[in-house]
Amino acid sequence: MKDNIYLDYAATTPVDPRVVVAMEPYWSEVYGNSASIHAYGREAAKSLEAARGQVADVLGCHPTEIVFTAGGTESDNLAIRGVAWAARMARRGNHLITTPIEHHAVGQTIDQLRDRFGFEVTVVAVDTHGLVDPDEIGRSIRDDTVLISVMYANNEVGTIQPLAEISQIARSHDVPLHTDAVQGGGKLDLDVNRLDVDLLTLSAHKFYGPKGIGVLYARREMALAPTITGGEQERGRRPGTVNVASAVGLATALRLAEEERVSESSRLAALRDRLIGGVLARVPDAQLSGHPTERLADNASFVFRGCDGEALILGLDLAGVAASTGAACTTGDPEPSFVLTAMGFEPEWGIGSLRLTLGRWTTREHIDRVLQLLPGVVEETRCH
Amino acid sequence: MKDNIYLDYAATTPVDPRVVVAMEPYWSEVYGNSASIHAYGREAAKSLEAARGQVADVLGCHPTEIVFTAGGTESDNLAIRGVAWAARMARRGNHLITTPIEHHAVGQTIDQLRDRFGFEVTVVAVDTHGLVDPDEIGRSIRDDTVLISVMYANNEVGTIQPLAEISQIARSHDVPLHTDAVQGGGKLDLDVNRLDVDLLTLSAHKFYGPKGIGVLYARREMALAPTITGGEQERGRRPGTVNVASAVGLATALRLAEEERVSESSRLAALRDRLIGGVLARVPDAQLSGHPTERLADNASFVFRGCDGEALILGLDLAGVAASTGAACTTGDPEPSFVLTAMGFEPEWGIGSLRLTLGRWTTREHIDRVLQLLPGVVEETRCH
Repeated sequence: MKDNIYLDYAATTPVDPRVVVAMEPYWSEVYGNSASIHAYGREAAKSLEAARGQVADVLGCHPTEIVFTAGGTESDNLAIRGVAWAARMARRGNHLITTPIEHHAVGQTIDQLRDRFGFEVTVVAVDTHGLVDPDEIGRSIRDDTVLISVMYANNEVGTIQPLAEISQIARSHDVPLHTDAVQGGGKLDLDVNRLDVDLLTLSAHKFYGPKGIGVLYARREMALAPTITGGEQERGRRPGTVNVASAVGLATALRLAEEERVSESSRLAALRDRLIGGVLARVPDAQLSGHPTERLADNASFVFRGCDGEALILGLDLAGVAASTGAACTTGDPEPSFVLTAMGFEPEWGIGSLRLTLGRWTTREHIDRVLQLLPGVVEETRCH
Repeated sequence: MKDNIYLDYAATTPVDPRVVVAMEPYWSEVYGNSASIHAYGREAAKSLEAARGQVADVLGCHPTEIVFTAGGTESDNLAIRGVAWAARMARRGNHLITTPIEHHAVGQTIDQLRDRFGFEVTVVAVDTHGLVDPDEIGRSIRDDTVLISVMYANNEVGTIQPLAEISQIARSHDVPLHTDAVQGGGKLDLDVNRLDVDLLTLSAHKFYGPKGIGVLYARREMALAPTITGGEQERGRRPGTVNVASAVGLATALRLAEEERVSESSRLAALRDRLIGGVLARVPDAQLSGHPTERLADNASFVFRGCDGEALILGLDLAGVAASTGAACTTGDPEPSFVLTAMGFEPEWGIGSLRLTLGRWTTREHIDRVLQLLPGVVEETRCH
């Protein structure tokens, strides 16, 4: 697939070769269980704590506030279920606030708390660009609100939420704020004090680290009921033998991404704008989805009227381009994604969604080849 | 640490270099998200399903019965909480049966179901060798029993449970049986039909695979409520982007261990018996803990009267030997482990516990050096 063009970096990224090298010693040399008290264990624990420190440096927090998990989904589960159950046990309240465009790891976890465990939930609307209104969140806060969860940047359309404004409102009501920052990891400012969030989720494989490892930042004051039980690892917040190799991989990947973040973001934003401009100029009946300016530097997402998103992906795949659609459409019964629906797109438009996400190995030649290919593929997959 | 002797293989193992090689392509070449429909995703999915098939071959089950998780702890949580909640939702019952010597991933999960969610639990006693009486389990089964969880082999003392007898009784009452086989993985017969279990937990880092990946075998008929929410991966049983590299690593490690199992077990059993015989001959006031014959080939565990287990581990560590104690003793307040307590050891003996676990790189020279060192270290750490 060496001639193929990968434009699905928001789905997952290759591991950066520098990260592969950083993980190498942890397979068969520094292999101790970080909970063991002998030299092998202490050596592993030292590497683990160094990795934790690197992550804490990027987030501007204390290392003890970093919990290593198996990925973004588990981090979201731990943040939301952990805070909700801790609040219930302390009889502090029963009410959660979120948005309709969260990743399923947030949305379905909150749904489960509502449907099976009797929590109450307010889902605050988003506008046509996928933006949440901070004032609307403020108006939704009740005396018994125990958590607000708003994603940093949307995985489908790339819209970046006004987190700092939301956190100001949350703080003024003394309600903790969680953000699923999976799509922001390595791309946006992750300083938890500037963002002023209480919980933040990251997943390594979105920023050139390995799959199967994530982070939950949890501010020291946050009471978290562990959602997996069985050991005292990670200060009792996440049991199980810690995956030191992957923790080192995550930390290395995050550090590299942070070092290169500003320059890489501006490189990608230029390519993205070239792609967006080219698509809107060449493809009739096309719209950009998501916010025109408040969007991730790597995200170009579109809707094409009267087009079948899945057919479009398969057409691009045949042409050697890896892309994705947010729409979970199956042949014969296409439906727009819940994100596009929440943003108010009519099915006629929303079904024909396309997400092109750029990354570290995307070149201008890739963009230009896609611009040549795409109009024809869209035309072929339009239902005439 | 190249001259050190590692005798803590039950805590974790180095990754076999053949496994490291097997994982290599999955970092930066076959890196697609296995849920993506384009060529990168399909290539990853193909590798994932091949890995799943290899695991299923060793277990003698259908590939769809294999769920990849982040490790043994998560697998135990999914098995127990998953079955318990599914049973409650179907109003099938409320009662669980287990033993007092399970790993915390089982024990604390069941405790939580009892203490926080009103499940009823029967804990069946073990004898002085750590063996469960299958008839006692039979007598504990009630009309509302929804799960029996009995470990395959104990992590501290290595005792192997009569699983086939237990499963016969469970089957005759139509109650599903879960086994935490983490310590049996790569060492004992894992054929789920011969064992006749409904759920079985494995963790790769116990058999020379990477940390952070495990398996839950769940018989097709088993209803499991997912304990992490957020996606349809692993047939809806375990959400989150699948860690394909580690799944391939786990499968490779399991296949290698299975191929070498019989010969390696007999090699290790001979070394273990040399170690056990030597320790009992050279160290006064020493007893073998666990069953004399029904025990793991790699496990030599002892109690020494009037000895502080943690001091013993630190003394051995200074002498270049990595070992472990089951006892969670802290200086000044030593207590025997819950496993030894359940087996009836008096604190005078139980506090001085030592677990030596052998593995793929253990040699006769290692054993002989430990036999030379150990009597002196025990003597030094005895409270006179």
